Amino acid sequence: MSSLGQSQREVARLEADGTRRDVTDQLVVEEPLEIRLEGESIAVVMRTPGDDIALALGFLFSEGILKEPDQVLSVAYCQDVTEEAQGNIVQVVAEGADKEAAEHARRQVYASSSCGLCGKATLESVRLLAPPMPPPPPLAASMLATLPEQLRTKQALFDSTGGLHAAGLFTYGGEMRLVREDIGRHNACDKVLGTCVMREEWPLSGHVLALSGRASFEMVQKAAMAGIGVVAAVSAPSSLAVDFALELSMTLVGFMRGSSMNVYAGRVA
Amino acid sequence: MSSLGQSQREVARLEADGTRRDVTDQLVVEEPLEIRLEGESIAVVMRTPGDDIALALGFLFSEGILKEPDQVLSVAYCQDVTEEAQGNIVQVVAEGADKEAAEHARRQVYASSSCGLCGKATLESVRLLAPPMPPPPPLAASMLATLPEQLRTKQALFDSTGGLHAAGLFTYGGEMRLVREDIGRHNACDKVLGTCVMREEWPLSGHVLALSGRASFEMVQKAAMAGIGVVAAVSAPSSLAVDFALELSMTLVGFMRGSSMNVYAGRVA
Repeated sequence: MSSLGQSQREVARLEADGTRRDVTDQLVVEEPLEIRLEGESIAVVMRTPGDDIALALGFLFSEGILKEPDQVLSVAYCQDVTEEAQGNIVQVVAEGADKEAAEHARRQVYASSSCGLCGKATLESVRLLAPPMPPPPPLAASMLATLPEQLRTKQALFDSTGGLHAAGLFTYGGEMRLVREDIGRHNACDKVLGTCVMREEWPLSGHVLALSGRASFEMVQKAAMAGIGVVAAVSAPSSLAVDFALELSMTLVGFMRGSSMNVYAGRVA
Repeated sequence: MSSLGQSQREVARLEADGTRRDVTDQLVVEEPLEIRLEGESIAVVMRTPGDDIALALGFLFSEGILKEPDQVLSVAYCQDVTEEAQGNIVQVVAEGADKEAAEHARRQVYASSSCGLCGKATLESVRLLAPPMPPPPPLAASMLATLPEQLRTKQALFDSTGGLHAAGLFTYGGEMRLVREDIGRHNACDKVLGTCVMREEWPLSGHVLALSGRASFEMVQKAAMAGIGVVAAVSAPSSLAVDFALELSMTLVGFMRGSSMNVYAGRVA
C-alpha cells in the first residue's frame, strides 16, 4: 500500500526505566470516504486512504447493490468538489443497481457516528457541543502505566471469549471508577459514559478514559463530549485521533507496553 | 458483567500436533440494539447485550443530543414490540433534546452496514441476494494454519503503524491472491472484494477470506455476498458470526495460533 495510509508524527516515548525520547512514529490515517451511486450519497465510511475505488465497489457489491462487474459503467473520484473533499468522494455510475438494497444501505451504513465528510466541521461541532474543557494537568506516567493491567483484570468477558473491547474510567490518581466491555469499541465507551449519566455524574472532567485497543477519533471525540481530557489507549491511535486531541488540548497516550508508552498529544510527567 | 454477553458453543479445536478435541468455547454475543428518543429511532448499534440502558444514554450524551442528566425523564426497554425485539429496543424520554444533533446522529449512525433489528431478516436477505454457494469442501488445517503468517507478511502498514486490520483472499490451496489493509475491518474486506470486481472476477467461490482480527457477522455476511464459503479469522468470532456461518453452511475457523485453531462452523480436514 502506498504511503497514503500513514502519517508521520513526532511523539515522546517514555520507557520503563524512566527515559524519555523524541521519536518519529507512523500513524495510520483515518479519513471519511463518501460513496456515491448515480450522484446520490450511499454511505460515508471512515477508512484508511488507498484503494478507494476498490473500497467503493466492494461496498456496493458486498451490500448487494450491484451484482455483476459489467454493471459498472464508470468509477472515479468526484472532481467537482471543494478542495477538502478532493480524493474523498468516489462516484460510481452503473446500470441496474438494486434500489432496495441501496436504500437499505443508505439507512444503515456503518459510517461513523459523527464523521461527516469534513473533520474540521466535526471538530467545530465538538467544540460547540462539548462542555468547556481546560487542558488537563500532566499526569504521572507511572500512574498511566497501571491502567492497562487494571482494565485487564476487569475484563471478565474478554477472558472467556477473547473478543471484547473494554473502556474504563479512572481518576487522575489512577483509581478505577468503572469498566465496561462490548464487541464494539464505541459501545464500551458509551456504556461507561451512560453509567455515569445514570449516576448523575456528568460531565466527567478530572478523569482518564482508558481503552483496551486502538483509539479512533470517535473515541477521542466521545471523551471530549464527556469533558474527559485524558485518553490512554493500549494500542495505536489513528492520525485523526491525534489531530483531534491536539486541537482540543487533550492528552493522548498510546502503545502502552509495561511502563513504556507514546505520548501523542498533551504532556505526561 | 452478566453472562448475557456470552454464548457457549461446542467447537473442534485442532492442535499443532494434529490432535482434535471437542471443546466448549465462550463466544462474545453480538446483537442489534435500537435506541429510540421520543419514539423515534435514533440509531441501531451492534452491541454485546448488557448495560443497554447505559449504552443508550451514553450514546445520546456523547452525541450531544442530551447534555444534562436531569433532562432524562425515563429510560426503559420497549415492551410493546415483537418477541424477537424484546430487550433490543431502548426508549428514552427526555426534555430539551438537541434536535439538530439528533438528526445528525440519525443520518450517520455507526450502526452496522446491514444489521437491521432482526438477524433473521438479514440472513434471509443474504440468502436472497448472495450468489448460490454450495458448502465448501473440508480444507486442510495445515493449509489454513499458514494464512495468518502469509497475511502478516503483507501487512506493510501494520508493521509501521500497529493500527491496521487486514483481509486477504486465498485459494483453497493456500495461495495468496491479494491482501488489503484499513483502519476498519469492513473496509479492508470491501477493498479485497472491490479489487476483484475491478478485475472482473466475481463471484469469488473457491476462495478463503482470511482476517487479521475478529470475525463479526458482517465479515461473514460480506464473504457470503461474494460467494466465499470459508472464513479464517486470527481472533475470535462473535456468536452471530458463527450463527450465520452455520446457517449458510460456511466454514468458519478462528483463534488461529501457530497450527492450532478452533472450528466454529463447517469442517476442516
